[in-house]
Amino acid sequence: MIGLPPTFIRVRYSDVDRTGFLYHVNYLEYFEVARSDWIRRFWRPYKEIEDAGYALVVIEARLKYLKPARYDDELEVHADLAGWGRSRIEFNYRIQLRGGDVLICTGQTTHCFIDRSGTPTGMPGELRALLDSHRTEGT
Amino acid sequence: MIGLPPTFIRVRYSDVDRTGFLYHVNYLEYFEVARSDWIRRFWRPYKEIEDAGYALVVIEARLKYLKPARYDDELEVHADLAGWGRSRIEFNYRIQLRGGDVLICTGQTTHCFIDRSGTPTGMPGELRALLDSHRTEGT
Amino acid sequence: MIGLPPTFIRVRYSDVDRTGFLYHVNYLEYFEVARSDWIRRFWRPYKEIEDAGYALVVIEARLKYLKPARYDDELEVHADLAGWGRSRIEFNYRIQLRGGDVLICTGQTTHCFIDRSGTPTGMPGELRALLDSHRTEGT
Amino acid sequence: MIGLPPTFIRVRYSDVDRTGFLYHVNYLEYFEVARSDWIRRFWRPYKEIEDAGYALVVIEARLKYLKPARYDDELEVHADLAGWGRSRIEFNYRIQLRGGDVLICTGQTTHCFIDRSGTPTGMPGELRALLDSHRTEGT
Repeated sequence: MIGLPPTFIRVRYSDVDRTGFLYHVNYLEYFEVARSDWIRRFWRPYKEIEDAGYALVVIEARLKYLKPARYDDELEVHADLAGWGRSRIEFNYRIQLRGGDVLICTGQTTHCFIDRSGTPTGMPGELRALLDSHRTEGT
Repeated sequence: MIGLPPTFIRVRYSDVDRTGFLYHVNYLEYFEVARSDWIRRFWRPYKEIEDAGYALVVIEARLKYLKPARYDDELEVHADLAGWGRSRIEFNYRIQLRGGDVLICTGQTTHCFIDRSGTPTGMPGELRALLDSHRTEGT
Repeated sequence: MIGLPPTFIRVRYSDVDRTGFLYHVNYLEYFEVARSDWIRRFWRPYKEIEDAGYALVVIEARLKYLKPARYDDELEVHADLAGWGRSRIEFNYRIQLRGGDVLICTGQTTHCFIDRSGTPTGMPGELRALLDSHRTEGT
Repeated sequence: MIGLPPTFIRVRYSDVDRTGFLYHVNYLEYFEVARSDWIRRFWRPYKEIEDAGYALVVIEARLKYLKPARYDDELEVHADLAGWGRSRIEFNYRIQLRGGDVLICTGQTTHCFIDRSGTPTGMPGELRALLDSHRTEGT
């Protein structure tokens, strides 16, 4: 598992529903914002990945909602790389109040690299080399 | 399992991302639109449930993305009640092109009834009676 | 001004904010849904316009919020073509409760046709001919 | 006019449309994020205003789209208080690339204070006093 510092997201007015709590769908978007930051910090901006002819499509997502988040709360969203294969990678997530220790939401997403034609493809060699170097370190 | 006719949703321009495909987060919102329709048809508008002091909070969600949907596609979103307990209910979903038979996305959500104080509570008696009558029919 | 039957939109749970009213930003999206329907009915799906190498970019938008809309309200959104020039077209909007006569929101948007390179361009000839035939009728 | 440092917003993947540009509706949401920051810095979090029984409803909005913004661009969104009356306040906006000087979008919004019953009401006395002190300074 490769974790990096979390992404901080303040809950926008548009993100809560009429209960005043963060609308459940938006957690999945917060996962993406944190995952993009992880990829940017670990390797390079996701935009460059798409510009190079790859896309990382979501093939599975799971979320557990544990506590509500409210409008204007500042959240820390942790995205950790949880595993990877030839063309797949998987992330784990956890969301807490900034500086807090109570879990608000956890989740996982699984992704597959595809090429411009939409066909699953092995991950970019540069990323694989980077991940392999981490695997060795982890041993 | 209690199914009803599907909800038809046309993919809005705002719902696709720069790949031209339906953005993965929005499937979870489409689930909700179909679930609301299910509840409206089976029992009563969800709005009345909230106005009566109950809320149905999502405690878990899972999605599998099988094929992409595109801008302007007309989808049929099936929400089926998959199970229920004292305070919980669970829905299964499947999304296809309208009139098509290829699965685009499947998923499940689990929900818990809470009262105005946010405490889990048994489901409204009227709904329970209605569900029980279906269980009997199903035997 | 060329009007067509309105588009009906039910206010989604995700579209209201913590006041329980339709979030002000989403009116602008409802305008787009109605405008797309107008274009589809009057001429052809907007998707085909983009596929043919044109895009219709928004260059100006104005909204007046007169009355609130609520979760689960069914709205009728009227988009009327208000004017057009060589490369520009303009729409007027009004939103009411379905079957109602109280205005909830009004607005205008101005659009410009651009080609694949992003350069403003004259509108597609087929559309111009169609509009010109209406202008004549209107005289 | 009372300006404060801008709000920085990175364009999210979910915020662009299939042209790869920021979807026009989302500018209006970016205005709100910047306006909330302005209110927080100038006076207090908007959340406290709602908790105190006031709401600041949008009664008019205007946007001019000058240049496109792209996925992953980091924008600076300037919200400036442009004027105020007994119960109304007005903001001007401009959006640029962070550190850039080319205008991407400009706009205005007009707001009215309402009380819990939804009736227009004078602005909170504390805010009025704060604004009046700035008017004097500005003379």
